[in-house]
Amino acid sequence: MSSHVLRPADAGQRYELSSPTAMPRAAGFLWNRRMMIQVTCRGYAVAQFMQPEPAKYAHAPNLEAKTFMQPEQGYYAHHPGRFFYIKDDETGELFSAPYEPVRAPLARFTFSAGKSDLGWTVEHLGIRVELIMSLPMDDVVELWSLRVTNVSGRPRRLSIYPYFPIGYMSWMNQSAEYRPDLGGIVASSVTPYQKVADYFKQKDFKDKTYFLCERAPDSWETAQEAFEGEGGLHAPTALQGETLAGGDARYETPAAVVQYRVALADGAAEDYRFLFGPAFDDAEIAALRDRYLGEAPFARARAEYADYIAQGAGCLVIDTPDAELDNFVNHWLPRQVYYHGDVNRLTTDPQTRNYLQDNMGMTFVRPATARAAFLHALSQQEATGAMPDGILLVDGAELKYINQVPHTDHCVWLPVCLKAYLDETADWALLDEAVQAADGSTLTVAQRIGRAMDWLLTERDERGLSFIAQGDWCDPMNMVGYKGRGVSGWLTVAAAYALKLWGNMCAQHGDATGAARFHDGARQLNDAANRHLWDGRWFARGITDDGVVFGVKDDAEGRIWLNPQAWSMLSGAASDAQRALMLEEVERQLHTPYGVQMFAPPYSVMRDDVGRVTQKHPGSAENGAVYNHAAAFYIYSLYTVDEGDRAYDLLRRMIPGPGEDDYLRRGQLPIFIPNYYRGAWREYPRTAGRSSQLFNTGTVSWIYRCVVEGLCGLHGDAEGLRIAPRLPQGWPGMHAIRQFRGATFEVTIKRTGREGIAVRCDGELLAAPHIAGIEPGRRYRLDVEVP
Amino acid sequence: MSSHVLRPADAGQRYELSSPTAMPRAAGFLWNRRMMIQVTCRGYAVAQFMQPEPAKYAHAPNLEAKTFMQPEQGYYAHHPGRFFYIKDDETGELFSAPYEPVRAPLARFTFSAGKSDLGWTVEHLGIRVELIMSLPMDDVVELWSLRVTNVSGRPRRLSIYPYFPIGYMSWMNQSAEYRPDLGGIVASSVTPYQKVADYFKQKDFKDKTYFLCERAPDSWETAQEAFEGEGGLHAPTALQGETLAGGDARYETPAAVVQYRVALADGAAEDYRFLFGPAFDDAEIAALRDRYLGEAPFARARAEYADYIAQGAGCLVIDTPDAELDNFVNHWLPRQVYYHGDVNRLTTDPQTRNYLQDNMGMTFVRPATARAAFLHALSQQEATGAMPDGILLVDGAELKYINQVPHTDHCVWLPVCLKAYLDETADWALLDEAVQAADGSTLTVAQRIGRAMDWLLTERDERGLSFIAQGDWCDPMNMVGYKGRGVSGWLTVAAAYALKLWGNMCAQHGDATGAARFHDGARQLNDAANRHLWDGRWFARGITDDGVVFGVKDDAEGRIWLNPQAWSMLSGAASDAQRALMLEEVERQLHTPYGVQMFAPPYSVMRDDVGRVTQKHPGSAENGAVYNHAAAFYIYSLYTVDEGDRAYDLLRRMIPGPGEDDYLRRGQLPIFIPNYYRGAWREYPRTAGRSSQLFNTGTVSWIYRCVVEGLCGLHGDAEGLRIAPRLPQGWPGMHAIRQFRGATFEVTIKRTGREGIAVRCDGELLAAPHIAGIEPGRRYRLDVEVP
Repeated sequence: MSSHVLRPADAGQRYELSSPTAMPRAAGFLWNRRMMIQVTCRGYAVAQFMQPEPAKYAHAPNLEAKTFMQPEQGYYAHHPGRFFYIKDDETGELFSAPYEPVRAPLARFTFSAGKSDLGWTVEHLGIRVELIMSLPMDDVVELWSLRVTNVSGRPRRLSIYPYFPIGYMSWMNQSAEYRPDLGGIVASSVTPYQKVADYFKQKDFKDKTYFLCERAPDSWETAQEAFEGEGGLHAPTALQGETLAGGDARYETPAAVVQYRVALADGAAEDYRFLFGPAFDDAEIAALRDRYLGEAPFARARAEYADYIAQGAGCLVIDTPDAELDNFVNHWLPRQVYYHGDVNRLTTDPQTRNYLQDNMGMTFVRPATARAAFLHALSQQEATGAMPDGILLVDGAELKYINQVPHTDHCVWLPVCLKAYLDETADWALLDEAVQAADGSTLTVAQRIGRAMDWLLTERDERGLSFIAQGDWCDPMNMVGYKGRGVSGWLTVAAAYALKLWGNMCAQHGDATGAARFHDGARQLNDAANRHLWDGRWFARGITDDGVVFGVKDDAEGRIWLNPQAWSMLSGAASDAQRALMLEEVERQLHTPYGVQMFAPPYSVMRDDVGRVTQKHPGSAENGAVYNHAAAFYIYSLYTVDEGDRAYDLLRRMIPGPGEDDYLRRGQLPIFIPNYYRGAWREYPRTAGRSSQLFNTGTVSWIYRCVVEGLCGLHGDAEGLRIAPRLPQGWPGMHAIRQFRGATFEVTIKRTGREGIAVRCDGELLAAPHIAGIEPGRRYRLDVEVP
Repeated sequence: MSSHVLRPADAGQRYELSSPTAMPRAAGFLWNRRMMIQVTCRGYAVAQFMQPEPAKYAHAPNLEAKTFMQPEQGYYAHHPGRFFYIKDDETGELFSAPYEPVRAPLARFTFSAGKSDLGWTVEHLGIRVELIMSLPMDDVVELWSLRVTNVSGRPRRLSIYPYFPIGYMSWMNQSAEYRPDLGGIVASSVTPYQKVADYFKQKDFKDKTYFLCERAPDSWETAQEAFEGEGGLHAPTALQGETLAGGDARYETPAAVVQYRVALADGAAEDYRFLFGPAFDDAEIAALRDRYLGEAPFARARAEYADYIAQGAGCLVIDTPDAELDNFVNHWLPRQVYYHGDVNRLTTDPQTRNYLQDNMGMTFVRPATARAAFLHALSQQEATGAMPDGILLVDGAELKYINQVPHTDHCVWLPVCLKAYLDETADWALLDEAVQAADGSTLTVAQRIGRAMDWLLTERDERGLSFIAQGDWCDPMNMVGYKGRGVSGWLTVAAAYALKLWGNMCAQHGDATGAARFHDGARQLNDAANRHLWDGRWFARGITDDGVVFGVKDDAEGRIWLNPQAWSMLSGAASDAQRALMLEEVERQLHTPYGVQMFAPPYSVMRDDVGRVTQKHPGSAENGAVYNHAAAFYIYSLYTVDEGDRAYDLLRRMIPGPGEDDYLRRGQLPIFIPNYYRGAWREYPRTAGRSSQLFNTGTVSWIYRCVVEGLCGLHGDAEGLRIAPRLPQGWPGMHAIRQFRGATFEVTIKRTGREGIAVRCDGELLAAPHIAGIEPGRRYRLDVEVP
């Protein structure tokens, strides 16, 4: 990696950023079973925990709207964060670590984002500040350690002030005080409500926020305004005094600030540890202190958490000529897949399509979780065969936000995601599992999926095209069919693909009648798509309620959409000739240096008959953005039609870097794939490529699948493992270690120029590139030659 | 006024504050028919306009919750505001007017809050900055004028940068750019929605924010982040350059910043004018520019607006030994009454009790408005006789927030408020007006009020006490009776008072049967109160669902409540002996230097069987606060029982000042009565007395009525004007000019020590202190002698 500000450390398991200004929003994120936190290199933080809906324990300075997690978080001076002021008691000079709020020009800065902790090393005024933040596995508590070292070559007297703003907790009640008995600052509030019924839902909420200190501080302040005074956050008035005033906060905005006054000999260091999080009452705070606050408990919690993360290591380690790809695939991509699958994005009602796709990814990490999720999802199938818009995960959960808007694609994901699971596990017995639904009916998985497929066949217009209602996979395309007539070009071919896959699975499962019926349905859909939606060089996106075909060459905006092209390749709607035209047009119209756009040109004016998508900002999610989820479908479809070079090219553009310019433009560390990069590269070149910084995305399951099954070509089937690597041009070969059905495959792939693929297993040439009868526990050495 | 930082100007029609730090939240407010804006002395602003629900055109930096207007607004660095940076182009020195965001220690500062404009004069670095903000009568547009004068004694080169942050407009779409064609910066967004139905409600919203410049600026910036850079708001990076970069904002937080570069000779000045507000489209922005932007249009708009405010001048001018009271009553109190009555607090669904009481105040300002409001309210009466929780003012309005929670007091306000109207106007014909309700029924006003009174009599338990349901006037006492059994002590005597008044009105209106029936009902209620709620020295607040009497001597918290005492005096439940005990206990337990508390001691722990009130912060609204609305009832009741000294004492404590200490502690200008001052004076002395800064309050109608009818004793009745002044001890006399039924009464009151009141009308001694047969247009001179 040639970057100057960003470098990998710890064999790529960390990324270190050496400037707080070059990529100001660059952030790491940690999660556990009950919370997640995203912290920027400058110290701003967004943290949420589940009770059971997402809640906060450090708040904005005003009354924030409750909403789904937003991309491109805006940061501002009083945004929640975790800060540490350091004052030279002799000169009064002040700086803050990590960087905010003082923004001093630091002598040294390192932000180090690891898989199971985030850390900083900051030096200024001859003082080194080292910070580490981590989480335990299950509790909602941030573990902060702070080391302050005198590297100035002379004795120093310092004041050290951790400052954790708590923000506007509640209009009903907020206060804070230092609690010597608990050893820290406790801020209290009551979640506001107006209806009696809400009281009973909320009365057990963790409405207190604690900041606990291992070592008793010398002074403290608990009111934001008293802390800041006229100095402002960059030079708080309270820090001008020898000690803090020890004030309480009474219906004033709470903040946790403590002071440690230390004399440090040259080279000497002091260590501090803190806990920060929400709690119900004093007893819980005391218990958390006992459990976590101390050197040994920190070490234990960090080890346990690292173990937890290691459980999400995935099924593949690669060694290719692309070292950055290797690092991303070996460490960061499965971690992101694991986050999605293990905690379901910390929601209680994931969209059905997300839930199924996230668990498709989990197939490669912990297939038992995926299996349970499929069964759980099917238990919420409606009597009509339709799948609901969201899957409820806890008692009392409700469909919220976009899940209250009717979409028509949810059934598609059942066979699409199940295919990955069955290929990985060959767990065909799943199809015979009985699943009881809320309506009392008990049907097997196979019967339920069959009904879902029938529902897809039913929900079509007289032309045989699939209704879109208020949206398909693309949520904000909500006006195309709200009158009940509009159809989706993507959904038509997606349904065809789903039916084709399910037909194949029926055949494999011994249901020849079903296979014939669903294959016939797939054919009908593909035919209808070709008849009504082929626009000469690509497939149209749909037809509105009023009969207007859109996503066609005559459209000045929204002319070509990626999804119908990708899925027409998957469904078989596109002939080879059509595919060649489509690929050419996608490349010409949709490729950008930062990936492939979901459609182009972006809408610049409102188009009532398409919907919200046309009102989004051009380049923001879903209006001409490089929307990685759609890009991932396309990459997957390219691998299925042996377009390995194109696929690798686009896959590579999805991961930040390599190269300084690319990191800076995207503004993101290469530790996750965001849900989008700004598109509109032709219209708004200044902002194109910027990362949304949002790590919730259906992209990652598909990209992991693309790497495993497409790039490496280590693809399961009913009998065993098929080997069909699709190395990009210029790669002489690669190595891979693949965990599969309990066995380990050590694979060496070489480009030899031969025709077809030759595979040697433990030295012995196979008749076909396929391993059957896999023995769990065995290590297989595969030598693969590719053309 | 002895204050050092605050002084009246323009004969008390302005208040001038000479420090931005002494009372940091001190604010003025302006409104017109479509918007309101509250601006602090430091430059922070909260502005809302109606479309038709309250909306914003300058936003917080994050996604704000939509909520009712909050007390004690929290301000923070990036809070919306209106700021003007001044840079010395020769030295690079920077300050900002009014004070934020630079917070330079200014050589001179004056914040001048007037009745129809807000202004500042700031001097620093030898430069004087004069700002005036005003509104036109009908459009949603802020008119800003800026004068910059060189008072340094030498020629200067300056850059002048108005900076109007626009904030986080929408997660769906936000952008901004300089528009040479419109002469300013236009920020665009689309109000986000997810459900199709919302689109049709929102698509005509004014989603653009404009900042228009009369004079073309030399440069501009439209993106918040580009403006600030690493410098932060107190020293924005963009201001370090010679000119601003002229950037656009594309899905970045918009801000309006322009630069004027000027060379000023000593003593020279430059004038600038700006418009700021929301608009639907470019055409509307262009039209607003044409209509308002220029010296003459500003002058015209300001004159029209001053006329509008003058229409709310009220019916009384007083000249007493208390000059500050005079000023408040003559200028500011009727202005606040007018605000409530003319624009209904800028809501679309005012609480029924607020709507009726606000219009009770309007009786003294513009009685025709009050009359129409009573008819409108009654048109929404339910078939049962109950009044709804809120009155819908526009098509499509919905009951929101607290109006979705069932309360049982709304009927009470009909006769209570009507009494003031009839006393003021003698418009008894109103009672015979026919009013059609939503259920199709047409009844007269008298019949409808009779039904409302019957409903009050019905909604009682077997003891004859009034059910509280999820609240009476005190919203957050929501758990007392949610199971359907709890009763309200206050509501029981309030219903008795309402029935007594209505019985009297029936008698006056010739309905002897009704009179007897309602008087009997009042008696029953009073008796029940005495039987079940008299606690020995005061009346209890109520009895919970589970039969627990509360607001009694055995309660450690919430022991005595003000409202039951006040209204038992009004209703006649309290005998003279009881009253003496109550007054003593109220004084002992509830009086504070900042007014009388609603109850005491405040709750410090949750009490499930009382409700939200116990969870509010002690000293915040409704948990032991000096809740001025309740205090106003008490003051009114004191006047009705001739306790004029006590009444004046408490009334006086409701108005900030006199004296520096009092202003500083309350932190508020004496231009309005806030909904509360912090109470908990005994528990939290540090924060007691602080103003909520919220000028929405039912208090003002009552206080105006208290001054007119109580203090001055110039009280209408069916025949004319009764004269019964209740001067506080130590006042030798006072003068008043009273507008009444089209006539003008010039009243001189003297304390002569005689027994009883003697009134001379135009020199002639009257047989009784009463003027009948009032001739509209006539000026009456009254000389009144009091004991």
